[in-house]
Amino acid sequence: MSNSKPILGITMGDPAGVGPEIILKALAGDKVHALCRPIVFGDAGVIRKAQEVVGDELEIHSVSDVSDARFERGTVDVFDLQNISTDQYSYGEISPEAGNAAFESILKAIELANENVIDGTVTAPIHKESLNKAGHHFAGHTEIYAHYTNTDDVAMLLVEDEMKVVHVSTHVALRKACDLVKKDRVLKVIRLVNDACKKLGIQEPEIGVAGLNPHASDGGLFGTEEKEEIIPAMEAAEAEGINVAGPMAPDTLFPKAKGGFFDAVVAMYHDQGHIPFKMKGFVWDKESQSWGKITGVNITLGLPIVRTSVDHGTAFDIAGTGQADHESLVNAVEYASMLTGKRGET
Amino acid sequence: MSNSKPILGITMGDPAGVGPEIILKALAGDKVHALCRPIVFGDAGVIRKAQEVVGDELEIHSVSDVSDARFERGTVDVFDLQNISTDQYSYGEISPEAGNAAFESILKAIELANENVIDGTVTAPIHKESLNKAGHHFAGHTEIYAHYTNTDDVAMLLVEDEMKVVHVSTHVALRKACDLVKKDRVLKVIRLVNDACKKLGIQEPEIGVAGLNPHASDGGLFGTEEKEEIIPAMEAAEAEGINVAGPMAPDTLFPKAKGGFFDAVVAMYHDQGHIPFKMKGFVWDKESQSWGKITGVNITLGLPIVRTSVDHGTAFDIAGTGQADHESLVNAVEYASMLTGKRGET
Repeated sequence: MSNSKPILGITMGDPAGVGPEIILKALAGDKVHALCRPIVFGDAGVIRKAQEVVGDELEIHSVSDVSDARFERGTVDVFDLQNISTDQYSYGEISPEAGNAAFESILKAIELANENVIDGTVTAPIHKESLNKAGHHFAGHTEIYAHYTNTDDVAMLLVEDEMKVVHVSTHVALRKACDLVKKDRVLKVIRLVNDACKKLGIQEPEIGVAGLNPHASDGGLFGTEEKEEIIPAMEAAEAEGINVAGPMAPDTLFPKAKGGFFDAVVAMYHDQGHIPFKMKGFVWDKESQSWGKITGVNITLGLPIVRTSVDHGTAFDIAGTGQADHESLVNAVEYASMLTGKRGET
Repeated sequence: MSNSKPILGITMGDPAGVGPEIILKALAGDKVHALCRPIVFGDAGVIRKAQEVVGDELEIHSVSDVSDARFERGTVDVFDLQNISTDQYSYGEISPEAGNAAFESILKAIELANENVIDGTVTAPIHKESLNKAGHHFAGHTEIYAHYTNTDDVAMLLVEDEMKVVHVSTHVALRKACDLVKKDRVLKVIRLVNDACKKLGIQEPEIGVAGLNPHASDGGLFGTEEKEEIIPAMEAAEAEGINVAGPMAPDTLFPKAKGGFFDAVVAMYHDQGHIPFKMKGFVWDKESQSWGKITGVNITLGLPIVRTSVDHGTAFDIAGTGQADHESLVNAVEYASMLTGKRGET
């Protein structure tokens, strides 16, 4: 074990969801330990309960200080917050107790990342309703992170293989998303994704920028945002030496991006980026009537600390069955590791 | 040759684009003749010039009356409008002469379809700028067809394999598209696609309806259109016995639709439907820096006559090289054939 590997805090997510299961599955493999020194933030009892589902042979090692962690294969170091008992939640059910335990795990990980005790964080899924029932009124991880790191401008980057999509806005009505396509914001997002690409090893990123309107307005026939906001932002980015192309017709840009045409693309609103991203990484299995494959990593750009995440929810329908796939979590660990600048070997 | 097969008029498209080439390639194969009795609408000289590119052995047979067509393998029947000479256009170049010739071909096909002389029409791509330079101020085929068949409410349906996507609006600014999400229009589009599915042989179509907003507004958190317009339209459709599901989060609906979860889906705006459709059917080849595959058929619903089309443009960059793929055209012929209710055998 090399001490140059980053210490990554992995938050357990909602105890009633698939988070604890996929964490155990991921830690049972070789890759996570090769990439980093992992430590789980949450409740050790929750992790032990998930072992009954997964059936692994890992030793759960409770610590109350990161320096006590062993970081050994075969061991799951848990920064044990002892904040929920296993009779307080059931798999697949909303509860304020579960929401609160998930929330406290995140807070502790953020606190220790802010203090540089850990090098970065990876989050397992939480449930918005449980979170809110616990009195924590946040839309999700991104808002929690922004708040507890005092950050104003963040952006959501989705990554899968060669496709990287960053969003000018996310969880707002489509009409409001149109209003948010402003030169300053578009420029900020271009800068954020350009920096992220460089951290991920791409020396001269080529960034494709989508239009807001169909056909990127076809020269102004349908909409003005390309001319008034997006092109000025791109010109400003170019003046800073960033390689940008566009604004392109969205229905051409994304299929090209899937084929590796750009290092990253800027989506003007949630679904413009999420639809093509999930068309690539999500595979619906008609036979079993369930998702056959879900891949992708969600990275919050703009924070002073590293945060990556799986790109799926708590999956209450299969929580506690051991069916959940851990590939997305392993990928999230890999990207967190790269973003810390201390990536281990795989 | 069975006379039960439909007579389909295939318009040549812009002479300077890939239309004439792909028509020849499609007619050189077996499938088109198996599906229908094809007749090309355009200028016979244009088709002969394209033969130099394609290098086929087909006989070009000019007719000025559909009843003179032979409908034989090895022969290309051309309803010869003699409306352009080959020195009046060059491959890949915009010209009013080419735009006008393309326009007249469409008009003649619509006229004969309106008169039931032919059973349906299939269109090769036109170039909007050439069309407009010729003084014909239409955004595209759809608008020409709506005008010359006196139709108010049409909808664009894209089809590829199991995925069928119909659009509430198409070529308008995204802000305007939000305004067009109205109960009456959504209901009309649901009815149109339900009818089309039945004509395509699906007895009890299952229709997925997308939300307008991210997460379909997440219960009203981001936007009101789901509650105020889309759900009332779906309730009205259900009352008519149509099977509808949704409104669903768009970034979940489309990946599911790709996996065959629905018989058809309703997209609320151009890019919501076009992005996932092209993510499925378009493959960018990084090596050659060109599209390795382009499939998909565009069908105009709501017209009194049948009209299907390839789902790509004039491809001026490769027109005259013989590279253009004709698969999309063959598929368009197949769907036109089915929609006439007189489909031949393949």
